[in-house]
Amino acid sequence: MAKENSKVKIIPLGGLEQIGMNITAFEYEDNIIIVDCGIAFPEDEMLGIDLVIPDFTYLKNNVDKIKGVVLTHGHEDHIGSLPYLLKEMNVPIYGTKLTIGLVENKLKEHNLIKTTRRKVVKQGQTIVLGNFKIEFIRSNHSIADAVALAITTPAGIIIHSGDFKIDYTPVFGEVINLQRFAEYGKKGVLAFLCDSTNVERPGYTMSEKTVGKAFDNIFSENRRSRIIIATFASNVDRVQQVINSAVKFKRKMVVEGRSMINVVNTAKELGYLKIPSDMLIDVEEMKNYRDDQIVIISTGSQGEPMAALSRMASNNHRRITIKPGDMVVLSSTPIPGNEKTVSRVINELFRKGAKVIFQDTHVSGHACQEEIKLLHTLVKPKYFIPVHGEYRHLIKHAELAEDLGVKKDNIFILSPGDILELDNESGGLTGRVPAEAVLVDGLGVGDVGNIVLRDRQHLSQNGLIIVVVTLRKHSAEVVAGPDIISRGFVYVRESETLIEDAKNVIREALNQCLSKNITDWSRIKTALKDALSEFLWKQTKRNPMILPIIMEL
Amino acid sequence: MAKENSKVKIIPLGGLEQIGMNITAFEYEDNIIIVDCGIAFPEDEMLGIDLVIPDFTYLKNNVDKIKGVVLTHGHEDHIGSLPYLLKEMNVPIYGTKLTIGLVENKLKEHNLIKTTRRKVVKQGQTIVLGNFKIEFIRSNHSIADAVALAITTPAGIIIHSGDFKIDYTPVFGEVINLQRFAEYGKKGVLAFLCDSTNVERPGYTMSEKTVGKAFDNIFSENRRSRIIIATFASNVDRVQQVINSAVKFKRKMVVEGRSMINVVNTAKELGYLKIPSDMLIDVEEMKNYRDDQIVIISTGSQGEPMAALSRMASNNHRRITIKPGDMVVLSSTPIPGNEKTVSRVINELFRKGAKVIFQDTHVSGHACQEEIKLLHTLVKPKYFIPVHGEYRHLIKHAELAEDLGVKKDNIFILSPGDILELDNESGGLTGRVPAEAVLVDGLGVGDVGNIVLRDRQHLSQNGLIIVVVTLRKHSAEVVAGPDIISRGFVYVRESETLIEDAKNVIREALNQCLSKNITDWSRIKTALKDALSEFLWKQTKRNPMILPIIMEL
Repeated sequence: MAKENSKVKIIPLGGLEQIGMNITAFEYEDNIIIVDCGIAFPEDEMLGIDLVIPDFTYLKNNVDKIKGVVLTHGHEDHIGSLPYLLKEMNVPIYGTKLTIGLVENKLKEHNLIKTTRRKVVKQGQTIVLGNFKIEFIRSNHSIADAVALAITTPAGIIIHSGDFKIDYTPVFGEVINLQRFAEYGKKGVLAFLCDSTNVERPGYTMSEKTVGKAFDNIFSENRRSRIIIATFASNVDRVQQVINSAVKFKRKMVVEGRSMINVVNTAKELGYLKIPSDMLIDVEEMKNYRDDQIVIISTGSQGEPMAALSRMASNNHRRITIKPGDMVVLSSTPIPGNEKTVSRVINELFRKGAKVIFQDTHVSGHACQEEIKLLHTLVKPKYFIPVHGEYRHLIKHAELAEDLGVKKDNIFILSPGDILELDNESGGLTGRVPAEAVLVDGLGVGDVGNIVLRDRQHLSQNGLIIVVVTLRKHSAEVVAGPDIISRGFVYVRESETLIEDAKNVIREALNQCLSKNITDWSRIKTALKDALSEFLWKQTKRNPMILPIIMEL
Repeated sequence: MAKENSKVKIIPLGGLEQIGMNITAFEYEDNIIIVDCGIAFPEDEMLGIDLVIPDFTYLKNNVDKIKGVVLTHGHEDHIGSLPYLLKEMNVPIYGTKLTIGLVENKLKEHNLIKTTRRKVVKQGQTIVLGNFKIEFIRSNHSIADAVALAITTPAGIIIHSGDFKIDYTPVFGEVINLQRFAEYGKKGVLAFLCDSTNVERPGYTMSEKTVGKAFDNIFSENRRSRIIIATFASNVDRVQQVINSAVKFKRKMVVEGRSMINVVNTAKELGYLKIPSDMLIDVEEMKNYRDDQIVIISTGSQGEPMAALSRMASNNHRRITIKPGDMVVLSSTPIPGNEKTVSRVINELFRKGAKVIFQDTHVSGHACQEEIKLLHTLVKPKYFIPVHGEYRHLIKHAELAEDLGVKKDNIFILSPGDILELDNESGGLTGRVPAEAVLVDGLGVGDVGNIVLRDRQHLSQNGLIIVVVTLRKHSAEVVAGPDIISRGFVYVRESETLIEDAKNVIREALNQCLSKNITDWSRIKTALKDALSEFLWKQTKRNPMILPIIMEL
C-alpha cells in the first residue's frame, strides 16, 4: 500500500532539449508507468546512423515495477522505439485504437506481434495500472485518436498534454475535451507536463479543416491537370481531406509510398478513413484514366531521397513519371534541417514542367501560444514541467507559465535522466538515471559509439591513405613496398606525382628509423604517420586518415 | 571593327540553377568581359569540400579576347573566385571603391596583390573595354557601393541588375538610380538580366534603416545587459547601424571574428563606416568597462562552427564568455541549410542564461516581387534572362516577366555553360561551353572528383574494413593472418565475436579458392570481398567498404 507521505517521481528519458524521442517514466513506490516510447532522427553529425532510441537501462533495472506503457498517439516520435523496448522486456501496451493499430504494424515487422500484450483504450476511458489511475482525455493533433493523460497518483494528479492543438472543427472526431482539463484543474493538479513545440509562435494554430478548403481550391483551379499531393503518411486527417476533394471533383485516388500504403490500410480498416469503395485504384490501373480523373497521394513531402515523390522528381520511380502540366502539392512544412532537400525536389519538379504548390496547404499539429495559455489556465497546476522541445522552447514555455502565475520555484526545466520528486509539500531534483541517446545502425543497437562516429567524420572529410610496407624482421629495412592505397583522398591515377613523392617520404622516414636503430613497430608506424601527415598537409592542406600496415619478412 | 551584323553572346558560367557562384561572360566578336566571379558553398553531399568555383576552361581558351572583369559588389558569391581566375590569367579588375577594397584583402591572402591590375570606378561612371561601354549604375544591396551594369554593345544595350533591392532610405549613399534604368529603357534595351533571389516573395523588401530602429529598441530595453550582435561581416550598413545605436546609448564597441575585423578595417579606411575615434576598443580592454558600456559585434550569425558567436556559445572562445543576462542578437535569417546549426547556437546561448533575439532584426538585400516589377517596367527589355536563383526562382521570374509583357519566346532560362546569341533581329542558344562546378579541397582545385566523393560518402555512412592476409606465392594458401582493421564500422574491442567470425568467413573463402585452384589475386580479392560483405550484411545490415590487402610470401 502507498504510504501517505511518498512522492511521485517523474523521470524523462528523452523528449527534452530535442524534438523527438518522447518517453517519460512516472514512478510511485514500486509502480512505474511509461508514457510514450519514441525515436528521434539522427543529427547531421551522426553519420550513417539510422535512428536514435532512448537508453532503457533504468527501466531494465526496475523491470519488476513496470505496469505498462501508455501511448498518447501513433507518431514515430512517440511509438517508434517500442520494438526496441519490447525486445528488452515484455510489458503491456495501452493506447487508443488507431495508435495500437499503428503499433501492431511495427510489432509485425519486428516479429513481436505474438508475444506483446496490448489493450485498446477509448478516448475518455480510465484504466488502473498499479497505483496509477490514468484517464485518456480526448485531444487534437495531426493524427486522429490522440489523447492527453490525467494520471492520478497517491501524491496528486499529473496532467500530461501529449502533443496537442485545439481544433474546434477537427476533420475526425471532436474538439479536445477542454471540460475535463477544467474539472481536473478545479480538483487541483499537482503537476502539468505540456507540449512546447510551437511555444515561440504567437496566436492560434489554424484548424486542420482550413487545409481541406485549400485542397478544394487547387482541385477547382486545376481541373485538367493530374494532381499529386505529398504529405506525412501519419496525418490521416490530411489524407481524408484529399479523399474528400477527390470525391467532390470525381477523381480516383492512387496511394504511393510504403508508409502511406500502410497507414491508409490501417486507418481504413479501423474506420478512421472514409473512402468510397470504388475510389482507390492501383497504380497499374492509372493508364485507364485521363489525367483529370486522377489524384495521387504520396510520401516524400520532406524531400526524403527514397520516398515516392523524390523518386518521381528524379525520374527514379518505376511507375509514375512527372510530366508537364502535372500539379504537385507539398502539403507540409520542411522540418528544420530538411529545407535544402525539399527545395531540391521542388526544383526537379519544376524542371520536369510540373506546377508546384508548397505553401499555404499545411497547418501544424501543435498548439501556439494562445492555446497553450488556455490549457495552462484550465489546469492551473502547482508544478509545471515544459516538455517536447529544444532547450529554447522549454525556457520560453517556462517564462510563459510564470507569466500565467506558476511560481518560479515550481517550474522545472528538466534534462533527460533527471529524477524529479514531487508531492503537495515540496518538489525537487533528487538524482539522475542514464539517458544518453542510443544509436541504431542497421541491426546494431548501441554498438556505434563516439570513436566510430569520429572515424566516420574524419573519413568523410578527408578520406584515407593506407600505406603497406614489408620490413625485414626486427628492423626498419624495406623488403617490399611501400604501396599506397587511397580512398576518398585523391584519385591515385590522377595524382601520380603526389603519390610517388609520398612514397619517397615514407622511404625516408623508414631510413631514419633504420639509422636510429628503431625496430619497435608502433614507433615505426608513428614515425611513418607523422612524416606522411606533415608532407600531405604541406602539399594539399588536407588531413586524411593514415593507416600504416607493416608486414614482416 | 565590329561588323554591323554580329550578335552578342551571353555565357553564364554559374549563378543559375543555384544560389551563388555568379559569373557571366559577355562576348562580342573578339571581345569578352566577365561580370562577377563568385564562389558557391559546397552542397551537403560534397563531403570535405571547402568551396566551389566556376570552370574557367572557356575563358582560358579565349584568354586573348578578355578585356577585364567587372564587379557588381563585394560579396563572396560575386568576388570569391577571383584569386582562382587570376592564377590562370592576369586580367584587369574593375569595381567600386569598397568592392576593390575587399578584393584587395583576397589578393593579399593569395599573394596576387602585386601582379593584379585593378581600377576603382565610381557609381555613375562609364568605362570602355574593347567593344563594350559599361556604365556602373548606382544600386542598393546589403553591402554598400553596389552597382547594376548597363553594357552597351554594338548589338544593343544589356542591363544586368546585379544583386539589388530598392531602398528609398539607405543607410549609406543614395537610392538606386531608377532614372538611369528609365533612360536606358527609353533608349531601348536589348536584354535584361535580373536578380531572382526573392522572386517568390510578394511585396517590397523593407529598408535597411528599419533594422536600425529595431537595434535602438533593443538597446533601450536592455540598458543593463551586455549586448552582443552577430551579423554578416559584409553587411557594412548593418555594422554602421550597430555603431549608431552604440553611440546613441554610449557604449564602446568590440569587433570579433576574423572576417568582421577585416571588413570593418577596410570599410573604415575607405570611408564606408563612420566610427567616432575613441569608440572601438580591443577585446582586452573590455574588463575596464561595465556590461552596460559594451556592445560586441561578431561573426557567426549563421551558426558557422568556427565563427566567433558559435565559439562563445559553446565556451570555446578564448576571451569572451557568455554570462547570464547577456543580450544576444542574431541579426540575420538562416540561409537554407543552416537552420539546424543556427538553432543549436541559440539553444546553447539560452543554456548559458543569455537572452536571445533572432527575429525581426534583419531585412533582405534582394528585391521582392514589386521591386522586380518596377525595374522590369523601367527597363522594358526585348529579351529577358532571369539570373541569380535556383531553377524554381528562374521559372517564377520568367512567368512574372511574361505577365509584364515580355514575349514568351524572348525569355531564356539558361543553364550554366549555355551560349545565348542575341541581336535586334533574333536570339537563341547556339552551343555550350564547359561549366561543371569545380571543387576546392584544401590546396587542391578540381582534384576531388566523383570517385573520391563517392568513396567519402561510402566511408561516412558505413566505415571501413581492411583485411590483411599473407598467402603462399601463386596460391590461396594462408601463411599469416587474416588480420582485420576496422575504422568507422565497429569498435573492434567491443565487437570481438563479430571480428572472429569474420576472420573465419575469410579463411573459408580462401580455402574455397585453394580447392578450386584459383591463384589470380584479383579473383581471390573479389571472392574474399563478396564473402565478407555478405556475412557482414547478414549480421549487421551494414555495408562497410572492404579493402583486402594480400601479401605474398
